[in-house]
Amino acid sequence: MPHIEFEPGFPGILGPMRFSPATAAPMNVLANALMCSDEGLTRGERELIGTYVSSQNDCFFCQTIHGAIASAYLEDEDWSFVKSVKENFAETEVSERMKALLSIAGSVQRGGKHVTAEHIARAREHGADDRQIHDTVLIAAAFCMFNRYVDGLATTAPTDPDVYRARVVNVIANGYSAVKGYE
Amino acid sequence: MPHIEFEPGFPGILGPMRFSPATAAPMNVLANALMCSDEGLTRGERELIGTYVSSQNDCFFCQTIHGAIASAYLEDEDWSFVKSVKENFAETEVSERMKALLSIAGSVQRGGKHVTAEHIARAREHGADDRQIHDTVLIAAAFCMFNRYVDGLATTAPTDPDVYRARVVNVIANGYSAVKGYE
Repeated sequence: MPHIEFEPGFPGILGPMRFSPATAAPMNVLANALMCSDEGLTRGERELIGTYVSSQNDCFFCQTIHGAIASAYLEDEDWSFVKSVKENFAETEVSERMKALLSIAGSVQRGGKHVTAEHIARAREHGADDRQIHDTVLIAAAFCMFNRYVDGLATTAPTDPDVYRARVVNVIANGYSAVKGYE
Repeated sequence: MPHIEFEPGFPGILGPMRFSPATAAPMNVLANALMCSDEGLTRGERELIGTYVSSQNDCFFCQTIHGAIASAYLEDEDWSFVKSVKENFAETEVSERMKALLSIAGSVQRGGKHVTAEHIARAREHGADDRQIHDTVLIAAAFCMFNRYVDGLATTAPTDPDVYRARVVNVIANGYSAVKGYE
C-alpha cells in the first residue's frame, strides 16, 4: 500500500506526479531534456543508463518501464539484451565506450565521490567527451531521484509486461508527461 | 580537478548548470517549487531536510550552502543548530514531527525501500499529513540527485564561509537560479 493516498489508475511515478503537479512539471521537462535527445548519446544509450541505475537501486517500476523503452530503441524485442546489461554489462556486446559510461553511472549510483579520475580517463580513451560524461552523470543522478521518489512513497507497479509495452509507444511518441496514464 | 571543463568562477552545482542550461532550467524550477514554499513545511524546515540529506551524502558544497540558507531562515546565526541537526537530530530541539520527517529523509537517502510503514505512522502521529510526507520524500530524493551531480563531476567548492553567506542573500531574495554566480 502506498504511504500516501494517490488517485487510482496511476501506477509508479504517475501517482506522486498527479499528487504534485507543480513538481511533476519540471521533473518531466528534465526527463525530456536528458532522455529524448540523440546528441552525443543516443536515446537507446540514455535509457540503458537509466535502466541500469534503476536496477542497481532495485526500483522495479523504473527499471521495467525504462528497460522497455531502451529495448524498443535498441531493437531488443524479447528484452533479453537489456536484461543482460542489468545483470553484467561487462560481458555484453555494448561498446567499450558504453561499458566505461555504465561504470561511471554505477559509481554515481553508489555516491558521487565514487567516480574517479580513472573512470573518466577510461571513458575518454574510448571516445567519450565532456558532454557524454556530463549526461551520464546527470542521468544516473536523476534516476537516483526518480527511483527514490517511486519507492520512498511505496507506489504500486503493474507486473504485466504488456502494460509497460503499451506505455512505451506513448513515451516514444510524446516524451515524458505526468498528464497521461496507462490507458 | 573537475572531471569535465567548467567556466571559471562558478563553483559547486553552478559549474555543471552553466555547462548544461537545458537541464539546469528544470532543475532550478524544481528546486524553487520544492524549497521556496511555506505550505505545510516551512522554508527553514525544507532547507534543513535538504542539508541533512546532503550531509548524509557527504556533499560539502550542498550541505554548506543549504545549511547556511537553513540557518538564515531559522535564525541560527553561528550555524551551530544546523550543525547539531546534521550530527544527531534526535538530540536536538527540533519538533517530534521534524524528527520523524528527518528519519524518513535519512531512509530515502539510503534508498527508497528503507522508508517503512512505521516511519510514516510515526510522522502522522506527530501531525504530518500527506503533503508534508510527499515533500519530505521528494526533497530527500532530489538532494540525492543534486549531491551526485555536484560530486560525480568533482566540482570545486569554496571553503570560506563568507562566500556561502553572500550567496544566501541572493537565494532568499531570488530563489534558485543557474544564471548568477557568487559575485
